[in-house]
Amino acid sequence: MMKYDIIIHNGIIVTVNEDFDIIRDGIVFISDGKIAEVSSKPDNYKYFEAKEIIDAAGGIIMPGLVNAHTHLPMTILRGIGDDLLLSEWLNKYIFPLEAKYMNPETVRIASYLGCAEMLLSGTTTCCDGYFYEEETAQAVLESGMRAVLGQGVIDFPAPGIPDPADNIKAAIRFVEKLHNLSSLIKPSVFCHSPYTCSEDTLKKAKRIASAEKILFQIHAAETKNEYDIIMSRHSVSPIRYLEQTEVLDEKTLLIHAVWVDEKDIKIVSKHNSKISHNPQSNMKLASGISPVPEFLKEKITVGLGTDGCASNNDPDMFKEMDAAAKLHKVNILDPTVMDAKTVVQMATVKGAKAIGLGDETGSIEKGKEADIIIIDTDSPHLIPMYNPVSHIVYSARGSDVRDVLVSGKIIVRNKRLLTLDAEDIINKINLIAAGIKKDVIMS
Amino acid sequence: MMKYDIIIHNGIIVTVNEDFDIIRDGIVFISDGKIAEVSSKPDNYKYFEAKEIIDAAGGIIMPGLVNAHTHLPMTILRGIGDDLLLSEWLNKYIFPLEAKYMNPETVRIASYLGCAEMLLSGTTTCCDGYFYEEETAQAVLESGMRAVLGQGVIDFPAPGIPDPADNIKAAIRFVEKLHNLSSLIKPSVFCHSPYTCSEDTLKKAKRIASAEKILFQIHAAETKNEYDIIMSRHSVSPIRYLEQTEVLDEKTLLIHAVWVDEKDIKIVSKHNSKISHNPQSNMKLASGISPVPEFLKEKITVGLGTDGCASNNDPDMFKEMDAAAKLHKVNILDPTVMDAKTVVQMATVKGAKAIGLGDETGSIEKGKEADIIIIDTDSPHLIPMYNPVSHIVYSARGSDVRDVLVSGKIIVRNKRLLTLDAEDIINKINLIAAGIKKDVIMS
Repeated sequence: MMKYDIIIHNGIIVTVNEDFDIIRDGIVFISDGKIAEVSSKPDNYKYFEAKEIIDAAGGIIMPGLVNAHTHLPMTILRGIGDDLLLSEWLNKYIFPLEAKYMNPETVRIASYLGCAEMLLSGTTTCCDGYFYEEETAQAVLESGMRAVLGQGVIDFPAPGIPDPADNIKAAIRFVEKLHNLSSLIKPSVFCHSPYTCSEDTLKKAKRIASAEKILFQIHAAETKNEYDIIMSRHSVSPIRYLEQTEVLDEKTLLIHAVWVDEKDIKIVSKHNSKISHNPQSNMKLASGISPVPEFLKEKITVGLGTDGCASNNDPDMFKEMDAAAKLHKVNILDPTVMDAKTVVQMATVKGAKAIGLGDETGSIEKGKEADIIIIDTDSPHLIPMYNPVSHIVYSARGSDVRDVLVSGKIIVRNKRLLTLDAEDIINKINLIAAGIKKDVIMS
Repeated sequence: MMKYDIIIHNGIIVTVNEDFDIIRDGIVFISDGKIAEVSSKPDNYKYFEAKEIIDAAGGIIMPGLVNAHTHLPMTILRGIGDDLLLSEWLNKYIFPLEAKYMNPETVRIASYLGCAEMLLSGTTTCCDGYFYEEETAQAVLESGMRAVLGQGVIDFPAPGIPDPADNIKAAIRFVEKLHNLSSLIKPSVFCHSPYTCSEDTLKKAKRIASAEKILFQIHAAETKNEYDIIMSRHSVSPIRYLEQTEVLDEKTLLIHAVWVDEKDIKIVSKHNSKISHNPQSNMKLASGISPVPEFLKEKITVGLGTDGCASNNDPDMFKEMDAAAKLHKVNILDPTVMDAKTVVQMATVKGAKAIGLGDETGSIEKGKEADIIIIDTDSPHLIPMYNPVSHIVYSARGSDVRDVLVSGKIIVRNKRLLTLDAEDIINKINLIAAGIKKDVIMS
């Protein structure tokens, strides 16, 4: 008799494998944190044994979602100064509040909150960048989530790095610290943007990433303003500037990529660089619409991200999928682009590939890590179910996620987070927020 | 001692009154189905008595949401044929399935489902139009929801009206039946569109609505294709055509209003006609982006609607608010348009006004009907709370709605629907869907 650690059965498996197989009455066998087998329920099912058997109750079994762009500690600034011009939002709210409140303790607590809400809404992996990122790493570790993390590099005074001359050293220290923290957490190098980092900083930062063979993340071509700045400084587009600076290769993640033209797209494709598409952040901040259907035509790997809670308010990847599918249809007046299947791939296997974890996670396939979520479909808004993929993108909400496994460990069971104390986090966040509230009301 | 039916306390009231007052530690007194008083918690609070005291537990107390455009029975077609060209979607899926499956029983059961999911996600009022609408009326009645309903008028064979020559008679019969059904349900006349109804039909239908002093609803200027058809037939835009046909006045609801120019906007404003904006449907079907910020500049009353589940998949007004706020920001590259306050007004008081219920519902004000919802904010994704209005639009989900009252009656308590048997509805829907599934898979 075959013995496994966990068996998940009685659900529709949306594998997101190469053939996008959908297995009705499917079964997933898990051993040693990995997926040992995926199939439809075998006739000899009763001869399998496991320490834990999870009944998906007719729901959807799918890979855990991959959020390709987050700033976890910004949960503490959720809903501060919406609907403002970017300059006012940044200069009146975000920058001063970051300077005053973002210390190691706040970053840690706000990162717990970010992990909690992401896990509860089905995200098992994120790609994050911020300051005091070692505190975020600690929170992610305790949460049981998978992540690629980067200490922010910017040529301005930043939380924890008052002198920008120290930013590269801080990034190196962070990478060293993270290398042996956990198999679930990978270090990366995160440069803020081509307009806030000098050419020298960009080059040095990329060199570290290349030497370490790790991901290099950078906000790029996000706004018209950035485009204009780079044009006036360097007489080329942000993407061409990054190419000239030699930071584009297959381990570079370009975050946003909104203000790009045909030539830029060819450049991204040529270097096999990856993209994180963050439609809701781009919509809310009125940055613009990234030409994602064009990227896909060029076979560029595009993941999906929510951005931080200061610019999107909610890291729910289900809302992000829905927005991604709909925004491009109306933008180019073609209802066939960004179909549900394409969007689910972006939120799982393509996102994983974009952040360098394509071999580990993003699909339910033999040999991959058991990063799996179960969606409870027994709700009025999820019946009837003709097509589970349509449900995932257009009908399900983060709160429909019932169970979450990361590397074969049950992290959320029956909508309850097992790894962190949600009540304690809420209390601590409310204490910090009380101080911020006074500041904002007085200003 | 003052005695009330219900007192709601211990929450932040977002009144959506004229001044958009937000009352921290607010209290709502309800008597005879109406709001008797709204205030911050009075010092002599302990001297008030009520049959029922509802503790909002620090959450948000707001008016029930008003969904200005629905097709309730289309819940049964949720997720059938997404991501298709409009013609393929309609001709291959929607029309044949409607013809085969939309009978009185299906319409009734699918309408129960629509009411259930709307009430559970905080919608207390909807404006609906479909066929066999008397069945929908019965479902709405049993659900305890408030609604404006219209029997569909179209110059094509339709479910229950095989001969279009009978469509006006059917509409009259429906209005007569509804007049004394319930104070919560108002009849209306619903013409499908300027391209599917003849000029004669439009005029007759509007005449009935005018004689009865009830709402006249019509899909108008939804797609480029409709615009082209009307232009080629009448050499004017759909809105100008409707003006010529004399159907525009203050009791006309124009649904979608996407393909409109400056002159059209002036016409809508001149006649004080109302608009239902349905951003997610327009996005998913790639219809286009309605120039809502321009409507608002002209002081046109714009409500928010989800459209039917065949074109949006989920009548969750929280998702609709989020999409409405973000879509227009990115469309005109201005993050200050469609701020959270404006969007909440569209989803409540403006929607109520748009469908002719502005005096009854849409805000928490003395004398209005007690249509009230309570949002549970004690979840990781809803803390911290700096601004409840931002939370409503950018962070809350339908599933955060804890309690729902319509006309002072508790319809949802602790996320459980009290008026309908959700389990029974789910079972019946799944039975009907099993037949549809076979058809779709075989086709």
